Amino acid sequence: MFVVKIGGSKGINLDYVLEDIALQVEPLVLVHGASDELNQISTQLGKPPRMVTSPSGFTSRYTDRETLDIFSMVYSGKVNTRIVEKLQQLGVNSVGLSGVDGRLLEGKRKSRVRIVENGRKMVLKDDHTGRVDQANVSLIHLLLENGYLPVISPPAISYEGEAINVDGDRAAAVLAKALGADRLLILSNTPGFLKKVDDEESLIQKLDADGIDEAIETYAQGRMKKKLLGAKEALAEGVRRVILGDGRIPNPVTAALQGAGTVIGQG
Amino acid sequence: MFVVKIGGSKGINLDYVLEDIALQVEPLVLVHGASDELNQISTQLGKPPRMVTSPSGFTSRYTDRETLDIFSMVYSGKVNTRIVEKLQQLGVNSVGLSGVDGRLLEGKRKSRVRIVENGRKMVLKDDHTGRVDQANVSLIHLLLENGYLPVISPPAISYEGEAINVDGDRAAAVLAKALGADRLLILSNTPGFLKKVDDEESLIQKLDADGIDEAIETYAQGRMKKKLLGAKEALAEGVRRVILGDGRIPNPVTAALQGAGTVIGQG
Repeated sequence: MFVVKIGGSKGINLDYVLEDIALQVEPLVLVHGASDELNQISTQLGKPPRMVTSPSGFTSRYTDRETLDIFSMVYSGKVNTRIVEKLQQLGVNSVGLSGVDGRLLEGKRKSRVRIVENGRKMVLKDDHTGRVDQANVSLIHLLLENGYLPVISPPAISYEGEAINVDGDRAAAVLAKALGADRLLILSNTPGFLKKVDDEESLIQKLDADGIDEAIETYAQGRMKKKLLGAKEALAEGVRRVILGDGRIPNPVTAALQGAGTVIGQG
Repeated sequence: MFVVKIGGSKGINLDYVLEDIALQVEPLVLVHGASDELNQISTQLGKPPRMVTSPSGFTSRYTDRETLDIFSMVYSGKVNTRIVEKLQQLGVNSVGLSGVDGRLLEGKRKSRVRIVENGRKMVLKDDHTGRVDQANVSLIHLLLENGYLPVISPPAISYEGEAINVDGDRAAAVLAKALGADRLLILSNTPGFLKKVDDEESLIQKLDADGIDEAIETYAQGRMKKKLLGAKEALAEGVRRVILGDGRIPNPVTAALQGAGTVIGQG
C-alpha cells in the first residue's frame, strides 16, 4: 500500500498521473492539491491570494472564511471532481473526499497567524488554517476493502468541527502513517529536490532521514521546505521511504516507485 | 429509512434543516441543491446562468464544460462541504459525495438540447446535462451500516464517465427508490405545492398519485413541475409517500414527517 500526493502547481500533467494510477495493482490512496487553480479562481472572484511568511520563513495562504469557501470550491469541487471523473473514465471506481468527510483529517485550528511583512512582525486574525495531527482512516479502510480508490484533498477539520486550510503534503504524510503505508510519493513540477532551484541538473537523488534538517537549512526554498518537513515526519512515524517525483513525465508513479526523483529514507 | 432533499433556492434555512436532521433517530440520506449560490457565483465569474426552456415547457440550465466546472465547485465544493461541516459540528459524522463518486448517480448524457427561445425552436450543442436513471447504492449502504450520514449532490455521471448536471429532485427520487426508502421529503422555500404560486394560503395538503398529472397541467409552474414529476416517479417505483415540505421553518424535517406540507401518495 502506498500514498500518492499530486501537487497543485502548474506544469504537473494530471492525465499522465491518472493514467499511471489506473495501471497500478497495489492498493493506493491519492491525495491532491490545487494551489494554482485556487490562485486563478480566487483572483477571478475578486479575492486574490494573500501569501504570508511566518517568522521562521514558511509561506502560507491567509485564509479568512470567504477564502476558505473558495478553497473548498476549488479543491473539493473542481479539482477533486475532475480527478474522480477522469479515473471513472479509466475504469477506476474512485470516491472523492475532503478531510471534513468522516473527520478524515483532523487538527488544531490556528485562528491567529504570526507573520512578517516588509520586515515587520504582525498578527492576522480570523484565519481558518491549521495543521493535520491525525487521520481517522476507518472510512478509508472501508473504501479500500470494497474496491474504491479514495481521492482526498484538504480542507481538514478542526477539533471543534470547523473546516480548515491545511498543508496537503503534511496531510499526505499523516495519512500514510495512519494507513501503515510504507511509501509516500510526492509528485510535483520538478524532477525532485534540487540543490539549485532553477537547475534541474542539480537533483539530489538520495537523502538520509538524518540529512533532512541540514538540507532544509542549506538548499530548500519555498514549498520544498514543507515537503522535506513532511518527509521527515513521515519517516519518523514509520513510512519507509518518501520519494519526491516528477509529475510532468509519462508514467510518473511507476518512475517514482522505481526510484526516479529524490529518494528519502531507506533505498 | 427516508431521504431528505434540501432545495437550493433562496429562503431555505439550512441551519434549521441540519439541526433537525441531527435530532432524527431513523437512518436517512441527505440530498441537496445549490441553484441560488450557483447563479451568484457563476455571475461573479463572468459566466451568468443561461436558463433554457424545452418545447414541453420545462426549464433547465444550459451547461457547457465551463459551467459544469462551476457547478461542481458550488455543489460539491462550497455547499456540500458547508453542510458536512455543520453536521460535524452537530455531532453527526457525515460524508459528502457527488453522483460521480462510486458512480453513485448514473444516467445518459444529453449533449444536445432542444429549446424554445423567443418563440423559435433551436438546438444547443456541447451540453453537459442528463437525467439520472439509476443509483448504485452499495457505497451508501456501506456508509449507513458504519454510522455515516451520506450528504449527496449532483453532478451525476454518464455511462461514458462524464460528469453531468442533473435535476436534484429526480436524483433524490431515484436514490429513494434504490435504497428502498419509504418516504421522500422535498424541502423548499414554500409551504408545499400551492394552487396559486404567490398565495401561501392555497396549499394543497393532499394529492393522490393519480392526481399528479392533472396537477402538473393545471397548477404547477417552473420547478414545481419537476418536483411533481419526481414525486410521481418515486411513487411509481415503490416509495410510499412524498412530502413537499417547508424548509424555512424550525424543525422542518419533523414537521414534514408529521404530515405538514403537501403529502403525495399514501397518507
